[in-house]
Amino acid sequence: MFTVRHRPAHGEPENVPLEEVPRLLQSECALFLDLDTPGEEDLEFLRNHLHLHHLTLEDIVKQNQRPKLEGYETYVYLAIHALARNDDWQIEPVEVDLVLGKNWLLMCRYGAVPGLTNNDSFGERLDIGLTQGADFLLYTIVDIIVDSYFPIIDSMEEEIDNLEDRLLTNTSLQDMNRLLDFKRSAIHVRRAVGPQREVFNQLARHDSSFVRRDHVVYFRDVYDHLIHISEELDGLRDILSGAMEVHLSVISNQLNVTMKRLTAWGTIFVIVTAIAGIYGMNFEHMPELKWLYGYPFALGLMAAVSAGLYLYFKKKDYL
Amino acid sequence: MFTVRHRPAHGEPENVPLEEVPRLLQSECALFLDLDTPGEEDLEFLRNHLHLHHLTLEDIVKQNQRPKLEGYETYVYLAIHALARNDDWQIEPVEVDLVLGKNWLLMCRYGAVPGLTNNDSFGERLDIGLTQGADFLLYTIVDIIVDSYFPIIDSMEEEIDNLEDRLLTNTSLQDMNRLLDFKRSAIHVRRAVGPQREVFNQLARHDSSFVRRDHVVYFRDVYDHLIHISEELDGLRDILSGAMEVHLSVISNQLNVTMKRLTAWGTIFVIVTAIAGIYGMNFEHMPELKWLYGYPFALGLMAAVSAGLYLYFKKKDYL
Amino acid sequence: MFTVRHRPAHGEPENVPLEEVPRLLQSECALFLDLDTPGEEDLEFLRNHLHLHHLTLEDIVKQNQRPKLEGYETYVYLAIHALARNDDWQIEPVEVDLVLGKNWLLMCRYGAVPGLTNNDSFGERLDIGLTQGADFLLYTIVDIIVDSYFPIIDSMEEEIDNLEDRLLTNTSLQDMNRLLDFKRSAIHVRRAVGPQREVFNQLARHDSSFVRRDHVVYFRDVYDHLIHISEELDGLRDILSGAMEVHLSVISNQLNVTMKRLTAWGTIFVIVTAIAGIYGMNFEHMPELKWLYGYPFALGLMAAVSAGLYLYFKKKDYL
Amino acid sequence: MFTVRHRPAHGEPENVPLEEVPRLLQSECALFLDLDTPGEEDLEFLRNHLHLHHLTLEDIVKQNQRPKLEGYETYVYLAIHALARNDDWQIEPVEVDLVLGKNWLLMCRYGAVPGLTNNDSFGERLDIGLTQGADFLLYTIVDIIVDSYFPIIDSMEEEIDNLEDRLLTNTSLQDMNRLLDFKRSAIHVRRAVGPQREVFNQLARHDSSFVRRDHVVYFRDVYDHLIHISEELDGLRDILSGAMEVHLSVISNQLNVTMKRLTAWGTIFVIVTAIAGIYGMNFEHMPELKWLYGYPFALGLMAAVSAGLYLYFKKKDYL
Amino acid sequence: MFTVRHRPAHGEPENVPLEEVPRLLQSECALFLDLDTPGEEDLEFLRNHLHLHHLTLEDIVKQNQRPKLEGYETYVYLAIHALARNDDWQIEPVEVDLVLGKNWLLMCRYGAVPGLTNNDSFGERLDIGLTQGADFLLYTIVDIIVDSYFPIIDSMEEEIDNLEDRLLTNTSLQDMNRLLDFKRSAIHVRRAVGPQREVFNQLARHDSSFVRRDHVVYFRDVYDHLIHISEELDGLRDILSGAMEVHLSVISNQLNVTMKRLTAWGTIFVIVTAIAGIYGMNFEHMPELKWLYGYPFALGLMAAVSAGLYLYFKKKDYL
Repeated sequence: MFTVRHRPAHGEPENVPLEEVPRLLQSECALFLDLDTPGEEDLEFLRNHLHLHHLTLEDIVKQNQRPKLEGYETYVYLAIHALARNDDWQIEPVEVDLVLGKNWLLMCRYGAVPGLTNNDSFGERLDIGLTQGADFLLYTIVDIIVDSYFPIIDSMEEEIDNLEDRLLTNTSLQDMNRLLDFKRSAIHVRRAVGPQREVFNQLARHDSSFVRRDHVVYFRDVYDHLIHISEELDGLRDILSGAMEVHLSVISNQLNVTMKRLTAWGTIFVIVTAIAGIYGMNFEHMPELKWLYGYPFALGLMAAVSAGLYLYFKKKDYL
Repeated sequence: MFTVRHRPAHGEPENVPLEEVPRLLQSECALFLDLDTPGEEDLEFLRNHLHLHHLTLEDIVKQNQRPKLEGYETYVYLAIHALARNDDWQIEPVEVDLVLGKNWLLMCRYGAVPGLTNNDSFGERLDIGLTQGADFLLYTIVDIIVDSYFPIIDSMEEEIDNLEDRLLTNTSLQDMNRLLDFKRSAIHVRRAVGPQREVFNQLARHDSSFVRRDHVVYFRDVYDHLIHISEELDGLRDILSGAMEVHLSVISNQLNVTMKRLTAWGTIFVIVTAIAGIYGMNFEHMPELKWLYGYPFALGLMAAVSAGLYLYFKKKDYL
Repeated sequence: MFTVRHRPAHGEPENVPLEEVPRLLQSECALFLDLDTPGEEDLEFLRNHLHLHHLTLEDIVKQNQRPKLEGYETYVYLAIHALARNDDWQIEPVEVDLVLGKNWLLMCRYGAVPGLTNNDSFGERLDIGLTQGADFLLYTIVDIIVDSYFPIIDSMEEEIDNLEDRLLTNTSLQDMNRLLDFKRSAIHVRRAVGPQREVFNQLARHDSSFVRRDHVVYFRDVYDHLIHISEELDGLRDILSGAMEVHLSVISNQLNVTMKRLTAWGTIFVIVTAIAGIYGMNFEHMPELKWLYGYPFALGLMAAVSAGLYLYFKKKDYL
Repeated sequence: MFTVRHRPAHGEPENVPLEEVPRLLQSECALFLDLDTPGEEDLEFLRNHLHLHHLTLEDIVKQNQRPKLEGYETYVYLAIHALARNDDWQIEPVEVDLVLGKNWLLMCRYGAVPGLTNNDSFGERLDIGLTQGADFLLYTIVDIIVDSYFPIIDSMEEEIDNLEDRLLTNTSLQDMNRLLDFKRSAIHVRRAVGPQREVFNQLARHDSSFVRRDHVVYFRDVYDHLIHISEELDGLRDILSGAMEVHLSVISNQLNVTMKRLTAWGTIFVIVTAIAGIYGMNFEHMPELKWLYGYPFALGLMAAVSAGLYLYFKKKDYL
Repeated sequence: MFTVRHRPAHGEPENVPLEEVPRLLQSECALFLDLDTPGEEDLEFLRNHLHLHHLTLEDIVKQNQRPKLEGYETYVYLAIHALARNDDWQIEPVEVDLVLGKNWLLMCRYGAVPGLTNNDSFGERLDIGLTQGADFLLYTIVDIIVDSYFPIIDSMEEEIDNLEDRLLTNTSLQDMNRLLDFKRSAIHVRRAVGPQREVFNQLARHDSSFVRRDHVVYFRDVYDHLIHISEELDGLRDILSGAMEVHLSVISNQLNVTMKRLTAWGTIFVIVTAIAGIYGMNFEHMPELKWLYGYPFALGLMAAVSAGLYLYFKKKDYL
């Protein structure tokens, strides 16, 4: 379904019907075509009026490819990834296809684009962009998308931070799995960011006839944003593997504390056994055995030794 | 509450009343407007006389956003973070909003800005900056703010250093929590520094009409400072995770030492039990059982073996 | 075996017989020579008609050298590595030799080149490249080869991801060896990528008479791809060593859990032994010994203590 | 105390009395002023004849500040750190203040500067530098200082190398503390190097009127040296934390070896106890008890089992 | 001992006697002087005819200094390190001194230079270089030396790879020492590479009158090689410290396996002891004691419990 937005040379931006597109393409003014879930006839329109190559059309239909930039004679094709986060902190890329022509920009998407179409200022910024040309429109869209990465990464960082505290005391397997989920999400984000960095590096470097000289610097900014995101992801990865290590150490130490306690109890009872063994010896001449209170004495000795050790171990924090 | 400082073409810098601002904006001389805790009428003033966009006014009112730079037609808007450190080593960002126009600089803040308003040379440097233009004034302020990061990071480093020593011998949970606090603080600083690096990179790269060509290099210097701070933070993070690892290892080793000790005592008493067991056997022909001093002999044997082992273990540092 | 592809100035690309090559080399049009498993007479042809230096011919015959670029007077020689992955995740480099002349490109290979000759769009892109000149043809080929690295690395990442999950619960030695295999594969890829980065850096920097000024930027893109791959490999290495560490920790913790359990059982039976030892003492005055139900009482005491401890240990997760 | 060195246009370098300085400042020839432990009247001289700003004078008097560069109207002020190493491997920074004017260089220091004033070729290089101008003189001094970092770092590396070997076998706490001392020293060096890198980056980048265009490249070299030192320090840090980890692992393993040994002995004596326990049972029908050599037989059995286990454990390296 | 190689303007390269050098220095053609183990009169020759500074002569005589570059008025002096590997994988630097004049290159060495003088194509490449000028000759030599680092690093990597596999199963101290040897070798290589990177960076950046403008790019290539080697060394270091960690973990786990086994045996015999203890109790009313087959029953019970536990532990992999 097409939504076409156009701003006449003198006047306010307005939505125009699809039929006017061929005429407007001849004008100087920037044109923005938003294509949601392209159908067969939409693709036909793109082929006939925007003269998209059949490879580009294939790329638009085929989803979930690597972010990339491909130059053609009359336009530049970009595949960009927005990031969707479900309730369970699973982060999945959502592809947006952008085609930049001389004075038009086509955006193809399948449904809502998280961080873009639900951004309050998207419409306003789009209209501002329309006055600056199609290349600035492209910048506006990718800038909004890339900026929408930051809150996701920030909230991941915070969530990991909370998790880390829990991992220091708690040793449930569930938290461990959570950690691995985050690790996987970080890899997903990294895979979206890495190739996009290259895309914008190319856009900023190539002497493209579709991007105005003085707009190149804006794509450079987007590139910088992505560099910065990469660094944050590296930091995140370090934090995650640090948390994992700490967690495993804590588990190990908790096991050792248990061992220590068991061994301390074992030691107490080995000593009790030794005392019992002594009075179980069969010597003929053992005066204690004949005592009237020999048995209570022995039991008392055992109890005293046990209690003494118990207190000593308690004091030494062995128990 | 506005404080307006102005330096006439020939004369000393002086505070001027707010009413003169509209007239002075027409002059060539640089004007510095310091707005503490903006009220409704202050914002009205900004809208009417400095012609700030409503988005900028929103950004000024809304605090604790990401550091950012946004270019408008008649000014550049920057959100910068100063760092406040409370007694408990919690480090929190404090937002400062800066708006740079052709010949004026507006600083909006909510209360004191740590590292800036409490800096002794702030007033003096401000007056020097006024002679160099509004862009240099901007540089002066961000330079003071960024320089104020260093003592915070240095003292964090020292504090961590002390903590590390303690962690090598002491295993209290409190020090561990302290370590995690530092980790969190380092993340806060990193989050303030990262986007600001981008801000100054943009300022130094974009061909802005608000920054004089030969002043660009100063913003480059601030950018370098931030790069350097990033590196120090990376170093800090390494030190922190190293300290954590060492601490967990030390805990583990202390547990193992305890285990070793308990096991050594256990071994001694197992041997005592074995001797007692031997003389507790019911063989008819055991000459020692008939001895008059059999029992003292057995006890002596036990004592001798225990003492021997004790000394041996002591020597071998098992106990 | 030679396959020669040529595109006349006005006309479609077509395969031409080898005999026409000397004539076509004089023309302006780009010529692509694909040499599969060069024989003695093929080399003779290269020496006589393309005037390859004997060192180049040696390099072509000798396989599995380091990727490199060598400039000669009438051509540039490149050795590039494609990556072959067998079923067992062993990744091996496959050398492709490329020689770029004024208006021709020679590709020498031994058998199929994974990622290139089995790429569906190879033929199509080759024909497009023929219109752009021999240097663009070179770019086309290396671009396809380098792009074919990505799916290999991606699938390695996914496989490692799966392995990591298994390593958290399972401690079989086989998975461990799998991990080491991946580590080795990553080193192989890195060794192919590292020197190729240098090759394309040189190609993009040197003022070569064989590469058109405005095509240099394409080799820069390939260089960027390789940089990106290097980064992914670094990430992979981190993930691998992290997985190894986690795996070893998990093994260690499983051992400790076993120890804990054994020690807990040992502690229970030491206490049983202690009780038995008490009633095995030879005091003359031990009332319990005379009781009719003394023995069942002792057994009951042992059973009660054991059961109590068992339940307590179960609750405390010691068993 | 001032030492002033000057080289007339035609002639050899010579020391001149302080009184001639005002006259020589007017000439074209470079002038070097070495001020050791400035007193009140020395500062007066600097204020009156070199026209140093009172902030600069304060910086000169106040020691141990961060390395920095500050530009003034008639000179550039630099604070640089040399490194002093005491016998105990404690490395401390020593501040040197340098002020570069149009044709003069002032060096302020408090006592000897390690690596500079004790460098044999300092005097010779100074005289060479005098012919090249004051900026080259500055380069000469900072180059000598920065070069003096290398032997310190190299010897640290060697010392750590030795320490690492010792740490693999020895587990004394003293070596551990040594390691932490090195860590602290590395942080000190890093703190001196980091800001100096920025200083020379600024010097090489700013279009300074005090540094000749063709001398800028020399400060670039110093900058590179500092980058290289930073890398070496990063390497050092890795080595140090690796050594720490290895050391803690070795301690842990030594503890475990002890545990293994104790447990092996314990196992042997548990078995002895078990045998003794068997013959301590009170069954009426136990033929061995009646044997004449039952007791020696039991003792023999115990000895045989113990010896067998001992040999077995020895072979298996359990003991 | 001097070997002088010269290529007349029209003619083949040829060795010329030392006496002709002063005359040939006046000509335009490049001259290569190879000085093996300089004696007193050789140095005299260098001083008189090549006008080397006494500092340079000292540097030539003094071996094993840091790689460096020093510019003089009539020549540039470079100290470069080749790497010698003895059979025991000890890698030691071998210094080569190179002096580049206007149209001559002097190479001073003490004996064979590994990777250079034993390189088959050295002579051939030298003769090619002679036609391109003295600076290209310099490039040729350093290129061969730097290229000779790669096989050393590659074989180190492979050796470490083998070692790593062994370390996973074997715990001999010898392999551990081997690992530390590699670590030391890697540090040696790094120390040779680091400063050389700076040397070639300077050579490529400085506007030297001794290096032709269009040859600078070759030194840039050497610089890139060294960067690449640095990265490989970083990788190597990571692999080495990873191997160390894994090795220590494996040792620790093997110890734990032993502990587990001993503890399992101990547990079995504690239970046996407990049973024996029960039948060693002195109750008057213990029916089993009177049974004819009480004793065999008790022994059987012990055997059954032991066997059952043994099988259970075997199944659970505790033994």
